Amino acid sequence: MIVQIEESLGERALFDLIGEIEALGFEATQVVTQKQSYIVVTGKGTDDIRAIGHLKGVSDVHSVKDSYQLVSRAWKVKRTTIDLGDGVTIGDGKIAIMAGPCSIEGVDQVDEIASFLAENRVAIMRGGAFKPRSSPYSFQGMGQEGLQMFAEGARAQGLKIITEVLAPQQIESMLPFVDIFQVGARNTQNFTLLQELGKVDKPVLLKRGISGTLEELLQSAEYIFSSGNEKIILCERGIRTFEKAYRNTLDINAIPVLKDKSHLPVVVDPSHGIGIRKFVEPVALAGVVAGADGVLVEIHPVPEEAFSDAAQTLNFKEAQQLFTKIRGLESFNGQSA
Amino acid sequence: MIVQIEESLGERALFDLIGEIEALGFEATQVVTQKQSYIVVTGKGTDDIRAIGHLKGVSDVHSVKDSYQLVSRAWKVKRTTIDLGDGVTIGDGKIAIMAGPCSIEGVDQVDEIASFLAENRVAIMRGGAFKPRSSPYSFQGMGQEGLQMFAEGARAQGLKIITEVLAPQQIESMLPFVDIFQVGARNTQNFTLLQELGKVDKPVLLKRGISGTLEELLQSAEYIFSSGNEKIILCERGIRTFEKAYRNTLDINAIPVLKDKSHLPVVVDPSHGIGIRKFVEPVALAGVVAGADGVLVEIHPVPEEAFSDAAQTLNFKEAQQLFTKIRGLESFNGQSA
Amino acid sequence: MIVQIEESLGERALFDLIGEIEALGFEATQVVTQKQSYIVVTGKGTDDIRAIGHLKGVSDVHSVKDSYQLVSRAWKVKRTTIDLGDGVTIGDGKIAIMAGPCSIEGVDQVDEIASFLAENRVAIMRGGAFKPRSSPYSFQGMGQEGLQMFAEGARAQGLKIITEVLAPQQIESMLPFVDIFQVGARNTQNFTLLQELGKVDKPVLLKRGISGTLEELLQSAEYIFSSGNEKIILCERGIRTFEKAYRNTLDINAIPVLKDKSHLPVVVDPSHGIGIRKFVEPVALAGVVAGADGVLVEIHPVPEEAFSDAAQTLNFKEAQQLFTKIRGLESFNGQSA
Amino acid sequence: MIVQIEESLGERALFDLIGEIEALGFEATQVVTQKQSYIVVTGKGTDDIRAIGHLKGVSDVHSVKDSYQLVSRAWKVKRTTIDLGDGVTIGDGKIAIMAGPCSIEGVDQVDEIASFLAENRVAIMRGGAFKPRSSPYSFQGMGQEGLQMFAEGARAQGLKIITEVLAPQQIESMLPFVDIFQVGARNTQNFTLLQELGKVDKPVLLKRGISGTLEELLQSAEYIFSSGNEKIILCERGIRTFEKAYRNTLDINAIPVLKDKSHLPVVVDPSHGIGIRKFVEPVALAGVVAGADGVLVEIHPVPEEAFSDAAQTLNFKEAQQLFTKIRGLESFNGQSA
Repeated sequence: MIVQIEESLGERALFDLIGEIEALGFEATQVVTQKQSYIVVTGKGTDDIRAIGHLKGVSDVHSVKDSYQLVSRAWKVKRTTIDLGDGVTIGDGKIAIMAGPCSIEGVDQVDEIASFLAENRVAIMRGGAFKPRSSPYSFQGMGQEGLQMFAEGARAQGLKIITEVLAPQQIESMLPFVDIFQVGARNTQNFTLLQELGKVDKPVLLKRGISGTLEELLQSAEYIFSSGNEKIILCERGIRTFEKAYRNTLDINAIPVLKDKSHLPVVVDPSHGIGIRKFVEPVALAGVVAGADGVLVEIHPVPEEAFSDAAQTLNFKEAQQLFTKIRGLESFNGQSA
Repeated sequence: MIVQIEESLGERALFDLIGEIEALGFEATQVVTQKQSYIVVTGKGTDDIRAIGHLKGVSDVHSVKDSYQLVSRAWKVKRTTIDLGDGVTIGDGKIAIMAGPCSIEGVDQVDEIASFLAENRVAIMRGGAFKPRSSPYSFQGMGQEGLQMFAEGARAQGLKIITEVLAPQQIESMLPFVDIFQVGARNTQNFTLLQELGKVDKPVLLKRGISGTLEELLQSAEYIFSSGNEKIILCERGIRTFEKAYRNTLDINAIPVLKDKSHLPVVVDPSHGIGIRKFVEPVALAGVVAGADGVLVEIHPVPEEAFSDAAQTLNFKEAQQLFTKIRGLESFNGQSA
Repeated sequence: MIVQIEESLGERALFDLIGEIEALGFEATQVVTQKQSYIVVTGKGTDDIRAIGHLKGVSDVHSVKDSYQLVSRAWKVKRTTIDLGDGVTIGDGKIAIMAGPCSIEGVDQVDEIASFLAENRVAIMRGGAFKPRSSPYSFQGMGQEGLQMFAEGARAQGLKIITEVLAPQQIESMLPFVDIFQVGARNTQNFTLLQELGKVDKPVLLKRGISGTLEELLQSAEYIFSSGNEKIILCERGIRTFEKAYRNTLDINAIPVLKDKSHLPVVVDPSHGIGIRKFVEPVALAGVVAGADGVLVEIHPVPEEAFSDAAQTLNFKEAQQLFTKIRGLESFNGQSA
Repeated sequence: MIVQIEESLGERALFDLIGEIEALGFEATQVVTQKQSYIVVTGKGTDDIRAIGHLKGVSDVHSVKDSYQLVSRAWKVKRTTIDLGDGVTIGDGKIAIMAGPCSIEGVDQVDEIASFLAENRVAIMRGGAFKPRSSPYSFQGMGQEGLQMFAEGARAQGLKIITEVLAPQQIESMLPFVDIFQVGARNTQNFTLLQELGKVDKPVLLKRGISGTLEELLQSAEYIFSSGNEKIILCERGIRTFEKAYRNTLDINAIPVLKDKSHLPVVVDPSHGIGIRKFVEPVALAGVVAGADGVLVEIHPVPEEAFSDAAQTLNFKEAQQLFTKIRGLESFNGQSA
């Protein structure tokens, strides 16, 4: 159950309100985000909002029967839009394209890709500085130095950036350079990391776990929200199945279902989703038609020479064609909605 | 390796040719379909087409490195189109819509749906007369009587029909009434059934197994083709995963990958694919954008009262909206191709 | 709900009884097996046995809440034992070993293996005459001729045999030669085949589907039982997962859970279960400790030369060691039970 | 490729050796553990050990073709034994039992369980102080305070303890109290955490990811080893499948295969593995017979009242019976080996 609190409520009155709720036998968790204060009420009997609705200081109460609360669409009718500033948004009805290399490799690479994106009206650049790799002997990314290089190159072209964070201790030094923190599939249930990202006022793109259920993804998003950060983007990036013909199995079903369950924007990552270059376009477009608010795609001037993920990375020509088709579908979606 | 034979080649010369191929240490399987004769050559060393190419009676030789041969796109450049007569086709670039109830329930139901489809320019009606059910105590379909009722009602409206066959012994009596035989997910590897359908000159729609790989699906299609029937349609209908939020997980990736691996048309079944009525439309459209040649969808005048699959069946209004959007995407695909 | 009928009940009284049950709003299915007559009652309200218990001709009524009925342990306290004659049984507390080649290859092979088994006190020989193969160009088995050769060779050593049946039309000609019909993983939901095997008075070993749930396996077993055959053995043979280090993933959990849900005996197939020769022994023993009533294992005099499944087949020395350990565990189980 | 270095080699000579290896075109990673120094050599051409074997300072070279190196059995013939002191070991041929509650709940609970374990000659107690929970509103464990209480209660009975660590920043304060750090399934690929645990001289029990492959598990273990800690225990704890009859699917196959691939000890967690109390015993025993070096099992004086995992926790009587049977199998394994 979600209790919205009157804005004017003083600290003492809030303390009393929480006490009254607990006296009713519930557990009460106070959540303070960038936007509002809430009390999340859990325990038995939370189906009945009447017990709490009349308490002093309560502006509204919503019974949420999901195992997650604040990220549920059961209480928030309006969809969440993420505003990155300078007119760049995610979740406002247009398709946000986020494109760039798997790994940041050097200043020339960053500049070349950033220019390409700017020319093609793509506002958000992706790129990894800290790379999670299955083997300790694989290239682990250019680190903080790479991140700064990335941020400078992208900003010079007026682009926002999204990059992966691996551990709580990286957040502080990354903060000045990052527009969107990405949490990868291996860290979807790294709850300590999620809680720390809840204390930051920057958007977080949260990828579904490699075999994670939608419920788990939404519960992980709840960790971020309940720690104080409402700016969350969900990302479907393919699940692990028995099929050997592709790297992962992009789960198209997750897109409309997540949008039905949550008010958060949902984007699709076709590059990891299928993992084979020539099939990135059809599954990306499928994601858009299925309702995705954005597409996260790996591109590189010379994919064959990319430090990582070469097999699933588009070249510039392929990327341009994809962007054109996405924009075509955007207007198809608009007309048919 | 596929050996195409000169049309004029006599039976005796063909016999000699097979003998010569076997003398080279290969295994040779003669395949005679509605359209052509082939010799499929297997065994070690089939990468090298030179040994066979010069033999008398050989018109062409193709090295196919897949575990399936005749259904592979490695030897047949042109895509296969299924012609149902009366201008109804599948795989010719347009999106074939196949719609109808899960189960045939009676003459009124058939007539009502057939009229609706005719009015909405849908040329193929689906419907089950023999139903494979997990429990022996569930409704098993109206059987042969239901099939005849179905065929008559559909033909009265100028529609073609598709219906499921469960066992070899049903084929003969079904034959006069059926336009497309459907093989369900539970029978994808019922090789005896596939071989018998290979002896029939009617199209077969072959569904992917509930956890079948694409390679297995294509090998099963090879059973039909090599038994004599080239008229095969592949169907993605959702796989089993750990996700509990939907009945099956429609595997969108299968569509472009199957079209890359095989010359056969590929259709998508969003009804079983996701199994939840309100999400059938987005995944159906995703399938179309990903390259499907057709959509197989469950509709019913009053889905809540359907004998089976009620939870995933569209009503007429939802169906009309889906048809309109499919046709909109068809022209989008056409323009952007 | 399962209604057991008084043995003395005449045909007319039975007809009346079914009518009375249907008049109460239930569906009634009469089941006549080798052993007894039952009426399976389905529909809403079957939790309440009182409505039916007092009807004339009813000897006992059992409310079964599972989706399967006659194979459930909810009504039958005593475990089912399969009696093959000549003192050979499955499900009586001892571990039944069924061993032999994947494919029957010839008379010498049969004789050599049959002698080996007889010397090692293994009473049941397995071997495939009709082989279901993913590719139509793979070796499909020696067929009916191979089956007869197999049966003769085995009987000469006093062995019972188990062999796979692929289609209803094979049953009649196989019947004189077979002691146990095996239904493979690809046919677990070939309901037509199951129904036909229900009309035969020979035991059926039913393998779990490649990604089948336990509930589906038990529902498939219900098809056999409700068609008239109570002699059913369930078999866990590995499921499909994402793990690439083994062919299948033997699901050890299925063994105690199936024995908890059903009164039928449960055996384990470690050969297909893991698919790698050197690991067959540990998973076989694990199956025994977990409660399996028997082990179905592939052996061959020279596994490297086997026509099929070479990679998972034990040689005689390995087989002997396995038999010894199984018998050791048998007494461990006996002592600790 | 693994290069073992002469113990007497000075720092300067080591520096030169690494330079020589890199000059040959390889990448060289120096690894210093509690026990030895190694150079792990990666890159193309590492199949050929001759180029490096003769270099000054090299005592031995091993070509390892796996994607992991130091944890592979390809170079280390002798199995690794973990010595916890006071005669408590894992991996020496006996079955190590680690038992205790899911969550530490209070001093009485700890004392009661610790006494029970001591009386039953179980040397290692498990218990969670920091609990990773899917929902932020679930009980998150008693934290550092709970850990200290746990350690004191266990030590009073002469027991070693194992407990889960969730984040790098917890390690330092946990260190004085912990005998074995446990890394849970959600953190198997939390590489930052693994690297930090590589800097600690305490054993680490690493659980397989919820849908992790064995190769990924071994690569994760390689992170710990290559960061400096050789004391690693691998743990199979069930994978996610489509089967709904149990919480997870304990993968029995993983046990012999991991022991074949790695020299590290392997333990089994039947409690999470199947997740249902009455089936914990059979799958635990199956794990032992399949070759596990230990069993990690959840027990509680009153399982129904446990703060977490109540459904899969054994009571004392059930636990005693399990311990007895494990010890019975231990001697069976010993005799039959």
